[in-house]
Order: sequence, then structure tokens, then C-alpha cells
Amino acid sequence: MRLDLAQDVGALAARIVDIESVSGDERALADAVEESLAPLRHLKVFRDGNAVVARTDLGRPERVVIAGHIDTVPIAGNLPSRVEGDLLYGCGTSDMKSAVAVALRLAATLTEPNRDITYVFYDCEEIEAERNGLRRLSVAHADWLTGDFAVLMEPTDGLIEGGCQGTLRAEIVTRGTRAHSARSWLGVNAIHAVQPILATLSGYQARRPVVDGLEYHEGLNAVGVRGGVAGNVIPDECVVTVNYRFAPDLDLDQAERHVREVFAGFEVRLTDAAPGARPGLTHPAAAAFASAVGGEPRAKLGWTDVALFSKLGIPAVNFGPGDPNLAHQRDEFVSLRKIAASERAMLTWLS
Amino acid sequence: MRLDLAQDVGALAARIVDIESVSGDERALADAVEESLAPLRHLKVFRDGNAVVARTDLGRPERVVIAGHIDTVPIAGNLPSRVEGDLLYGCGTSDMKSAVAVALRLAATLTEPNRDITYVFYDCEEIEAERNGLRRLSVAHADWLTGDFAVLMEPTDGLIEGGCQGTLRAEIVTRGTRAHSARSWLGVNAIHAVQPILATLSGYQARRPVVDGLEYHEGLNAVGVRGGVAGNVIPDECVVTVNYRFAPDLDLDQAERHVREVFAGFEVRLTDAAPGARPGLTHPAAAAFASAVGGEPRAKLGWTDVALFSKLGIPAVNFGPGDPNLAHQRDEFVSLRKIAASERAMLTWLS
Repeated sequence: MRLDLAQDVGALAARIVDIESVSGDERALADAVEESLAPLRHLKVFRDGNAVVARTDLGRPERVVIAGHIDTVPIAGNLPSRVEGDLLYGCGTSDMKSAVAVALRLAATLTEPNRDITYVFYDCEEIEAERNGLRRLSVAHADWLTGDFAVLMEPTDGLIEGGCQGTLRAEIVTRGTRAHSARSWLGVNAIHAVQPILATLSGYQARRPVVDGLEYHEGLNAVGVRGGVAGNVIPDECVVTVNYRFAPDLDLDQAERHVREVFAGFEVRLTDAAPGARPGLTHPAAAAFASAVGGEPRAKLGWTDVALFSKLGIPAVNFGPGDPNLAHQRDEFVSLRKIAASERAMLTWLS
Repeated sequence: MRLDLAQDVGALAARIVDIESVSGDERALADAVEESLAPLRHLKVFRDGNAVVARTDLGRPERVVIAGHIDTVPIAGNLPSRVEGDLLYGCGTSDMKSAVAVALRLAATLTEPNRDITYVFYDCEEIEAERNGLRRLSVAHADWLTGDFAVLMEPTDGLIEGGCQGTLRAEIVTRGTRAHSARSWLGVNAIHAVQPILATLSGYQARRPVVDGLEYHEGLNAVGVRGGVAGNVIPDECVVTVNYRFAPDLDLDQAERHVREVFAGFEVRLTDAAPGARPGLTHPAAAAFASAVGGEPRAKLGWTDVALFSKLGIPAVNFGPGDPNLAHQRDEFVSLRKIAASERAMLTWLS
């Protein structure tokens, strides 16, 4: 199926929202994207699984990457899309099919952009990192992703959000001695022993460091706790899972060291971690982009795939018309005006 | 298969241990018990499922109940039984087939006891209360269980243990507000909110009240904790499951009220409870029993089926040759001398 890329960007967004593409099931939308871009003479189009990459090749001194995922979280009775006044409702409207519509419109209309552009439409962003389409491309086709600067069109409410915070999860473990709960004094209760861990978390003073001009806001929180053997047994183990969201002035090693220091004296098991990314706003292409978009860039607190670009050595920022607070919500919507404004800003930058 | 009830009680115990009877699978042993008792002229024998009841009917002014379960926890590579010196090893030796052997020997040899006796051999004690054979009999055949006093032959190391403590489980719930863990300050962490609950438990001063002359020892402990939505979400609920083991001077209502007072201000959900049983040592038959057995009666801290007799209005104590600390252990054993001593004590009391 070929999408009509000549239509208004809001109408195109609605059309794309109505093509279901829950993570792992993006084929119909990937096909539509590929078939819509393939006929365009100024683009070379590549396909890998449910990811589509399209590039201009005009020999410009600079190349920028415009990337967005085409998958959504599961449908929650919120399709087909509907318009109420300025708002387009439906699964994926904010996160991030309105941005996909913008990128497709740019791909169709910018036949002679002032910078070479690589458009990346990828799959499986909303699920486990190992299946992430951008990660897969970075391994299998790193050459498709080269560039001097990248814009990841995640929902930012039309503002530039620089970099992203890192995330680290660890299990803090307490141990005790099992006993029958009828004679509890013969045991040592591992759940009771969790108390100082929770006290530490409750009293934790989160850093708010300024990195490359943007203020980040860290957090250290319990995201899970489990303990207990049976209803009549004093438990001999309890595990608190904590999530440390750290500013991009720390690398993974420093973040891990911090968590181990905070929980000194406890058994700390690192379970997974992903580095943050510095804002990248010092790059000349970024400065030009910021000036075209306007507004005051702010720090991205959530983790996004800009960290992947950062790992590839490509400075990247988040910028998209969606509202990050509506992502993954049943009543997700996006402002049609903001979609159009995003398209205008990108055109200004790239024309 | 008929058991040889004329043999030495230790040898009989070994024979019974070797007839596997994991909870729910007691038919072979129940058959053996029934077939061994049925020919005895001084007994009337009844059967319900895998429970067997045998009664004398001599018109004595007092009737005592001698009860024990015939099931065991699952075999753990600890069958067949073996003897090492004074010790009989194997699954169920302490809990409580040695006691079943004593009761069978009494049933066979006490043709003219000084009190009428009801022997109760029942199934499914080691599993969920709804399947408990004694409970089933108390509903379906309450007339089989009537009596003035009961001895439940659970392992007590050859001492009289009076009554039993009650047990109550409750969930103490904290609530918060979900948020993405990248912006944790937008949420309220329900796991962190568990801290005062654990502080209360850690600092809890357990009562040690004296009831009818025996000192009990209470306990209030976390036996489970669960909380957490996902690795990137500030959790909005956390549940601590506590187990209150309470002395038999409190009834269920009082025990529940106590737990609600201790956790005042928190949401408290009662999940299950079983009342305790007072020692019952003030009954004349109990006094005669205590005098025959000798030793200092002590409080039973674990919950046992004496509470069921208590509910039926029958004072009951625990008394058996097994070692309660070995129950359910892989290397469970029992002293052959203690089995014989139990048999002698019971004979002294009932002859």
C-alpha cells in the first residue's frame, strides 16, 4: 500500500496511526513506508526486517539523520484514530507516529535539502532492548546510519531535549536465617532487614547537575521488592530492585560505583544498565537546528535511543511533536498544530 | 495387608514408615490400619476416606481420644527406613508414624482400658487445612470424635505440650502514585512507604504470657513482601504479609484487633486465621495423664489440630515420641527408646 505523502501532515499522521504496528508486528506499516519512498528519485531506500532507511546522496558537506520508531505499545481500545478539534486521538499519536508523518513529509518534499539526510524508520523500540531495530541496524548496517548529527523524533512537545539520562538497575539483597514462624526467634528475618535500604532510598538526595548547559534530574528508587518463602516461614532472603537514573556526566562505571557506595555493606547485584548521552548541542549542526526550531533546549530525563547514536559517535537530540506525558496512555493524543509546527521547523532547518 | 500388632513398637513403627503415605496418597496405610484393627473384638472400627476410627465401648464414665495423622510430607530420598543404634531414620519417623505405632499397639493390647478410648488415624494433615482429615471427620462424623479429653500424638519429644498458639496472617498495604522512574518525583513510591511497617516489626516486643500455668511466646513477623510494576515504574502498591502467632489467651477477634492497632494508619487486610487452644491441663483426665507421663508440661508454640478439638469442646494436649525439630527434615529420625517410653506412659495412664 502506498501512502499519499502529498496530503496534509496531520491527515497523513492519522492514516499512519490507523495502520496497526504493535512491536513485532510492524510489517504492514514498514511495507507502506518502503513502497511510498521507493519511487522517489532523490532517495535511496534500504530495508532490513521491518526497518526502512532512505538517504539523499547530494554530496553535501554535512549529513543529518532523522530517526523514529514505527512501532507502538499494544492497542488499548484506542483505534481507529479520531479528531476532536485540534487533537488527533489514538494509539501512537504522540509516541510517535505523528513524527513518522513529519519525517515522511520531509522525505517526500525535500528533494534538494541543504544537508544530506538519512531517514530511519525502525521497529521494536517499545520492547526489550535486544530486539530494538535501531540497535540491529547499528550492528548489521552501521554504514546506513553514518552522519554528523541526529534528530530522534521522540515526543518532546516540540522542544529540543538534549541527550538522555542513563539507567541502571540493581538488586540489593538481604539475608537471614529460616525458621518456623511459630518460633520466629530461632530465625533472622531478611524482610525486616530491608528497612535500612528503604530508609536510604527515602532520604536519598538526587543530584541535579548541569551538563553542557542543560539541567538533569537524577533519581534512585525501589521499583520492586520480593521476599518470602511460605506463610509460616521466617524468610532468609529479600531482594529490593532499585533503578538509578543518572545524568550523562556519569558513565556506566561511575553510576555503578555510586550505587555500590550508597548501599555499602549490602550485597549489590547489577542486573542491567544503559549509558546516558550528553546533550550534543555544541555541534554546529545542532546549533543551526536549535536556532531553526527556537525555544529553550532542555534536558531529556528519560532514556532514549539517542544513547545509541551517542555510542556510534553521532551527537543526537530528541525533538518531536508528541507529548511525552501522554505516551503509552490509553487516551493518547497529539496536537495537529504541533505536528505542522514540527514540519515547518524541520523544513526551515533543512531548506 | 494386616500389620503385626504383637511386635515391638519400634519394629512396628519401622514397618509403618515403610508404607509410603504422602498426603493424599494414604490409602495403602489406611487399609493396613483398618485391616489390622477390624478383627479386634473390643473395638468398633469406622472408615471415612483414608481416615480410620476405632472405639472401645465399655461404658466407662470417661472417654479419651487418641489421635494422629498417618500422612507425611513428600519423600526426600529418605525411605526405606533404617536403624542406627537407638535411632530409626526415615520420612515420617518423628512426624508422626512412631506415634501411630504407639496408638496401634495401645489399640491392640488395651482390651479393657480404664477409660473408653477412641483411636483416630487421619489423613491430609500436612497440607492445606480444607483437606485435613480430622476436620472432615468433625463435620461428617462428629459423633465419632466425642470425648472428654484428647491426646494428639504430634511430636513433642515425649513431653506434654499444652494447647497451641493461634496464627493469623494479614496483608499490610501501602499505596503511592505511579510515575515513570525517569521522573520519579512525579510519583509516590509505595515500596519506600513500607519502611515504617518494617520498623514496627523490627521493634516489636512479643508477649510471653502465662496461660493456665504454661508460658507461651508470641511472634509478629513479615513472611512475605511484594511490590513493583515494572523496572521503569515508580510502584503504586506494596504489600507486606505478616504472620501473628498469638497465645491462646487471645481469641481470633482480639488477635485481629491487636494487629490492626499495631499497624494503625495502614490498610490491613486479614487473609487467614486459626484460633489457638488453651492448654486444657485443668481437666481431671488431663491431670491424670500428666501424672502418668511425668515431666513438666510446656506450652505448644506451633499450631496443631488440638485447636480443632478445642473447637469441638474437647480439651486436648500434644504428646508424642517424635522430635518436633526434626519434622519435615530430610534426615528425620526418632529415638526407639522414646517410642517405647511413650507406649509405657500411655499404658500406665489407661490401664
